[in-house]
Amino acid sequence: MHKVCVTLGTLIAGVLLLAGSAQAQVPADCVPSALNIPGAPFPCIFPDHRVMFRVSAPEAHSVTVRVGKGFPMTHEADGLWYATTTPLVEGFHYYMVQIDGASFSDPSTATYFGGGMWSSAIEVPASDAAFYSNQQVPHGDVQIRWYYSTVTRKWRRCLVYVPADYSQHPRQLYPVLYLLHGWGENELGWTFQGHVQQIMDNLIAAHKAKPMLIVMDNLNAAKPGEDGRIYDARGVLTEANPEPQAPMGGAPGMPGAGPGHKPGTPVARRRPMFHLSNTFSEMMFTDLIPMIEKEYRVAPGRDNRAMAGLSMGGMQTFTTGLQNLDKFAYLGGFSGNCNGFSGSFDPKTSCFGAFADAASFNQKVKVLFLSTGSVEGPRVKAFSDALTQAGIHNVYFESPGTAHEWLTWRRALADFAPRLFR
Amino acid sequence: MHKVCVTLGTLIAGVLLLAGSAQAQVPADCVPSALNIPGAPFPCIFPDHRVMFRVSAPEAHSVTVRVGKGFPMTHEADGLWYATTTPLVEGFHYYMVQIDGASFSDPSTATYFGGGMWSSAIEVPASDAAFYSNQQVPHGDVQIRWYYSTVTRKWRRCLVYVPADYSQHPRQLYPVLYLLHGWGENELGWTFQGHVQQIMDNLIAAHKAKPMLIVMDNLNAAKPGEDGRIYDARGVLTEANPEPQAPMGGAPGMPGAGPGHKPGTPVARRRPMFHLSNTFSEMMFTDLIPMIEKEYRVAPGRDNRAMAGLSMGGMQTFTTGLQNLDKFAYLGGFSGNCNGFSGSFDPKTSCFGAFADAASFNQKVKVLFLSTGSVEGPRVKAFSDALTQAGIHNVYFESPGTAHEWLTWRRALADFAPRLFR
Repeated sequence: MHKVCVTLGTLIAGVLLLAGSAQAQVPADCVPSALNIPGAPFPCIFPDHRVMFRVSAPEAHSVTVRVGKGFPMTHEADGLWYATTTPLVEGFHYYMVQIDGASFSDPSTATYFGGGMWSSAIEVPASDAAFYSNQQVPHGDVQIRWYYSTVTRKWRRCLVYVPADYSQHPRQLYPVLYLLHGWGENELGWTFQGHVQQIMDNLIAAHKAKPMLIVMDNLNAAKPGEDGRIYDARGVLTEANPEPQAPMGGAPGMPGAGPGHKPGTPVARRRPMFHLSNTFSEMMFTDLIPMIEKEYRVAPGRDNRAMAGLSMGGMQTFTTGLQNLDKFAYLGGFSGNCNGFSGSFDPKTSCFGAFADAASFNQKVKVLFLSTGSVEGPRVKAFSDALTQAGIHNVYFESPGTAHEWLTWRRALADFAPRLFR
Repeated sequence: MHKVCVTLGTLIAGVLLLAGSAQAQVPADCVPSALNIPGAPFPCIFPDHRVMFRVSAPEAHSVTVRVGKGFPMTHEADGLWYATTTPLVEGFHYYMVQIDGASFSDPSTATYFGGGMWSSAIEVPASDAAFYSNQQVPHGDVQIRWYYSTVTRKWRRCLVYVPADYSQHPRQLYPVLYLLHGWGENELGWTFQGHVQQIMDNLIAAHKAKPMLIVMDNLNAAKPGEDGRIYDARGVLTEANPEPQAPMGGAPGMPGAGPGHKPGTPVARRRPMFHLSNTFSEMMFTDLIPMIEKEYRVAPGRDNRAMAGLSMGGMQTFTTGLQNLDKFAYLGGFSGNCNGFSGSFDPKTSCFGAFADAASFNQKVKVLFLSTGSVEGPRVKAFSDALTQAGIHNVYFESPGTAHEWLTWRRALADFAPRLFR
């Protein structure tokens, strides 16, 4: 085993050398993605947002890069495969490379946990990128923290954004936003894909948002025994779910949901590790919140506690939050809520009946925030309108020109955070 | 672009479904690696430390898994490729999958930045794994922190381990260990591959190490203009290096170093982004240390400051530390130092002449720590012996049965940290 690193190093150096040696071939107006590994010239982005990919696969027969849709790559004279996409929308996109029918991440980019695996990604810089970029302002930090859950009987990891002034005011108490990722992502998402640090540092420095703690946990939580469910070849649960099942809808990006899905029934789930559950709520109230309120200087009570999430994390937020309004005064669903995929809404029964008494709801919930990307379609806007019609105060935010992706959610956070704890 | 996530999700769900549906084929005594994505049964580890890999590549002609050496995979009746290795040594191993001559990470595992890219990895559990595992003890955290470097004129990210009692003792000052990764790795390595949190939490809870801050930065630092060096097809620098060049050796895992290398001359470097430099030292003293001493409650002076690193990080530690003994009282080189690859050592001239006056050196440096894995060979031991013969006090630690890999460095940290700040 002496040569493990040498061998790996040599192997990889060869790959990298290749990447470097053909650097002269990068078109002058194609700028390497900010997410590339150090020194990698591809993928690069043209001013019109076409993206050029390059992959080394000398003996492959067919190579496709799949970013949203598939773009077949061509084998050029230099022995490398190239593809240039049509113009992509601004923002962060996961992508994969298919080599002779198999799917892999691109060795030229950093990987991010999304879609249930560590995927490649590119960043098409947004016209408003300053809001999620490092600026010369006081910087907070994100703290990686492990804790033991008595509910799941497992160690869990959460990340906590702490604002710059936290250590300067040792007697000040801070409100807390609990913020969830989406399906197939994890507790790292808001930091590495979402730029939570930069967004909040910039907002707080501009006095647009109050200094707050943001706790980013993993929405997957299963008790011993809950993991071992049996799924058929289509990924459909074939065993009765042993835990109480909350009504839920699906959302784009969440397998199992679709136009044929009946609201109020459990969504067929393809993977046991990605599921909405009341176990998460139980874990949150039993383990997570007490741990946070012990480790940090937290302002007490529901008026100082918010919850939000994106996509499936928005669904979990509404599942947890609407059934526990004594614990949260602010709720946000970014491209995900309790009625995400369906147009049908009955204020008396939908969403756990939480909206049945509008006056009572409005008195309790200081901000109910719904958002989506304009390219995601009209569902969230329709839900917001239906809530308004039912007398429920709510805020609707739409990210212009973006899809079910991270730029939509970065912008949603930047719009939501300033509304909190006022 | 509406369907970006749906398409990607569906694609990936297919891959995952495949991974799940054949789960019955996992041998009963083969335990999934702790680094696998949630629910992935492969790679798995047999009790005798053979590892079984599985990859989906339906149309590939040849697939090899490369973990240290290459293990050809065979295309089985279920359409998947399988390989079982010979027994591997304990610990964390990077690995890659080669599909028809191209190198990719395995979609079944988490990826870690090593070898200059995001590589797959498996963890063969060590017999002494408790020391780097979560235990029921008070937990510190690791803080992700961005700061601006006036030397490189770029934003940099460092990670800071903060012990559990830091927030409980708001007037206490803490000593600091600056701890570096190896070639082709980055500032995330000690947290994600190295388990720095668990190692330190366990040592501190057992009163074996003093509570301390550990700052983990990126050893790569280049001023504007230093990035644009020109390398020939073999990766050898063809332009004169514009910055002052410190004498240095190579180390296993660092391309360019080898038996033919002449000590005291620069190593030919294959990649501009991975290099030892005095720019790092300048950045550290100008930007990093002042930032840390502003943001944290740091005990003053050299007696409260240590520096260590692994492999190339050990080389950088000795490059920085030996030339700045007024700033450090403790130095550690884990499988890397100022004399790593060469047997020749002249106490009067080697290593910047720092060992020329043994009495003065011993008076200044409270702990000079050298370590290696027993499988790495006798170089570090020979260097330790040569130092001892020259009258230089030093500590030598050897990790039994491990190679130039992370288990060696986890154990080195666990032996080194208790010796600090006494």
